[in-house]
Amino acid sequence: MPENDKQGLSVVTCTAPVNIAVIKYWGKRDEDLILPINSSLSVTLHQDQLKTTTTVACSRNFQQDRIWLNGKEEDINNPRLQSCLQEIRRFSRKRRNTGDSTSDASSVSHKVHICSVNNFPTAAGLASSASGYACLVYTLSQLFGVESEQLSAVARQGSGSACRSLYGGFVQWKLGTQLDGKDSLAEQVESESYWPELRVLILVVSAEQKSVGSTSGMHTSVETSQLLKYRADVVVPSRMEEMIRVIRERDFPAFGELTMKDSNQFHAICLDTYPPIFYLNNMSHRIISLVHRYNQYYGETRVAYTFDAGPNAVIYTLQDHLPEFVQVVRHFFPPEVNGEEFVKGLTVCSADLSEELKRDINMEPTPKGIRYIISTKAAQERWTHN
Amino acid sequence: MPENDKQGLSVVTCTAPVNIAVIKYWGKRDEDLILPINSSLSVTLHQDQLKTTTTVACSRNFQQDRIWLNGKEEDINNPRLQSCLQEIRRFSRKRRNTGDSTSDASSVSHKVHICSVNNFPTAAGLASSASGYACLVYTLSQLFGVESEQLSAVARQGSGSACRSLYGGFVQWKLGTQLDGKDSLAEQVESESYWPELRVLILVVSAEQKSVGSTSGMHTSVETSQLLKYRADVVVPSRMEEMIRVIRERDFPAFGELTMKDSNQFHAICLDTYPPIFYLNNMSHRIISLVHRYNQYYGETRVAYTFDAGPNAVIYTLQDHLPEFVQVVRHFFPPEVNGEEFVKGLTVCSADLSEELKRDINMEPTPKGIRYIISTKAAQERWTHN
Repeated sequence: MPENDKQGLSVVTCTAPVNIAVIKYWGKRDEDLILPINSSLSVTLHQDQLKTTTTVACSRNFQQDRIWLNGKEEDINNPRLQSCLQEIRRFSRKRRNTGDSTSDASSVSHKVHICSVNNFPTAAGLASSASGYACLVYTLSQLFGVESEQLSAVARQGSGSACRSLYGGFVQWKLGTQLDGKDSLAEQVESESYWPELRVLILVVSAEQKSVGSTSGMHTSVETSQLLKYRADVVVPSRMEEMIRVIRERDFPAFGELTMKDSNQFHAICLDTYPPIFYLNNMSHRIISLVHRYNQYYGETRVAYTFDAGPNAVIYTLQDHLPEFVQVVRHFFPPEVNGEEFVKGLTVCSADLSEELKRDINMEPTPKGIRYIISTKAAQERWTHN
Repeated sequence: MPENDKQGLSVVTCTAPVNIAVIKYWGKRDEDLILPINSSLSVTLHQDQLKTTTTVACSRNFQQDRIWLNGKEEDINNPRLQSCLQEIRRFSRKRRNTGDSTSDASSVSHKVHICSVNNFPTAAGLASSASGYACLVYTLSQLFGVESEQLSAVARQGSGSACRSLYGGFVQWKLGTQLDGKDSLAEQVESESYWPELRVLILVVSAEQKSVGSTSGMHTSVETSQLLKYRADVVVPSRMEEMIRVIRERDFPAFGELTMKDSNQFHAICLDTYPPIFYLNNMSHRIISLVHRYNQYYGETRVAYTFDAGPNAVIYTLQDHLPEFVQVVRHFFPPEVNGEEFVKGLTVCSADLSEELKRDINMEPTPKGIRYIISTKAAQERWTHN
């Protein structure tokens, strides 16, 4: 329930998590409704390490809707922001008209002021649009009394992958078949507690140059990549089935291999785009190579990488293998000695590396190639703070 | 005709050119016969800049077949070398048995000593197997009196792309349909004189690490890339038709765009391979970006890149645009001041760059990012020196 003081000011603050896809979303069939050309699947990450916090205030005294992102006012007329605001207000009115609403009857006609902040630096290169739009839509829904089952479609119209950040654990976004997008929704596959051993590391590398944004990138891919249609129509449907199966079986080697293959295929599609899009840099290539050599040493997939629209790696592994792999990263990407802490977030125990492992991996160390690591895990969706 | 001195020593020396594919060969349907999963098309380059020279000596006094590559003896039992030697000797015997041979009747039963050298450094990162096997097979055919129409299939069994180096100008290698590979042959599409304005630059970048060889790379791609089958079966057949058409029309913008798209798709397939293969590095990415920005400035495709199994770019352009583009490369990749000459091979006139062009390209210069340029053009196939 929103606070409502004597001046008619209602304020709600909520948070929302980041999600990292293991079957990638790349390409829209409808740019306005944000309907994808294929289903996707992600893991929702813990908010202690990565979250967006949004406060929405609503008052009859506000002259216009306004928004501040990380302290800087942004244009409220952004079409995607407008879609979300309009949709939430439409649902709220509908609900009030049917007498279901428990919220302040007048608030929906008032203007809002929105403040949104991330607890992770933009430099981390993590797309903040998913947690950002999920949080915006969830916070507005709390303010205006809109039911949660309707939010997935609204968040999707802000940023496609935002719909997945409304659920915790393992979440699929089904592409749907309806023209109006009503069945293009996220749903939970399994909760975070289903596979508690799963752990996540974000390896933040030194980015040199800005890349193509994902909205324009995926638009160009749809227009120009001959391979993308085949991926969306033929490859992904069977991968979605397989991914859900291996998560339910908690089969890490199969989960890891499929995750890596789908990340690679997404970046292959980017390269098949004209002009080509490069999100991976030499450091990303080295991390990929390190992961394969590490798995090769053990003869099984113990660690898996996935990359979104940028050079930073997200690593999935199991708790048992975490300390050694972090030590491997530290060895082959020696961090700055007097810098800030190398591993942030959830504590990682120390581990020794055998000479044999180091010799077998046989890579030249790259000092300062990785700036820092964020250690985290899968988690539930969101909490409301009033 | 081979020299034949009193000791029964016959010696023949021949040369063969390098070829650079514009529709890429990647993937075999038969590993022994080297039959490809798709047709390919290449441009044969001038031997003044890039060639292999092979001398084969044959004597009744030789105890065994031997081979030296760039002065170093290599294993003659390499299965591909053996395929070529056996096939040539088989054709030679067949021909003698039918009474067609004009060569020394006994030589085919003698052992050979083979010396092969390239006039370009290995560091140039150009696959030498195409010119190498083309030259070996052609030289042996001269020694043993084997007809030239049979050589394409023999050279193909040494290295797939070698069959294309047996012809000059624009050459296609048709994949064929027969199980024994007899119709998987190279043929000339147009001679080099058909499009004399076409020019070629090889941008040799600083390679940091050794990559996966193309033989094992394409094997892994066939085994693991889901996108490769679609490329081979659906994409390449129509691209082959289009490429032949645009060459016949001398339509550079269409030729350039298709060349770039096919290079990108080949590297996309490498990324879709598991584990993924990276041949392009950050410098390759920058060259790609420079080419697109340069073309963007003029609103037409004046310059096109293509990359084989390594980070070096091969640039196709027209004579008229060559001087300016070389100057653009020199500006954005400033060479070492006191180093060897930056542009080797065919002379490139100097050109001035407008401030507007430099500003519009808007890239940070990368000093010494390109080690040197080899300037060359399309040319005829090979010459025999006796």
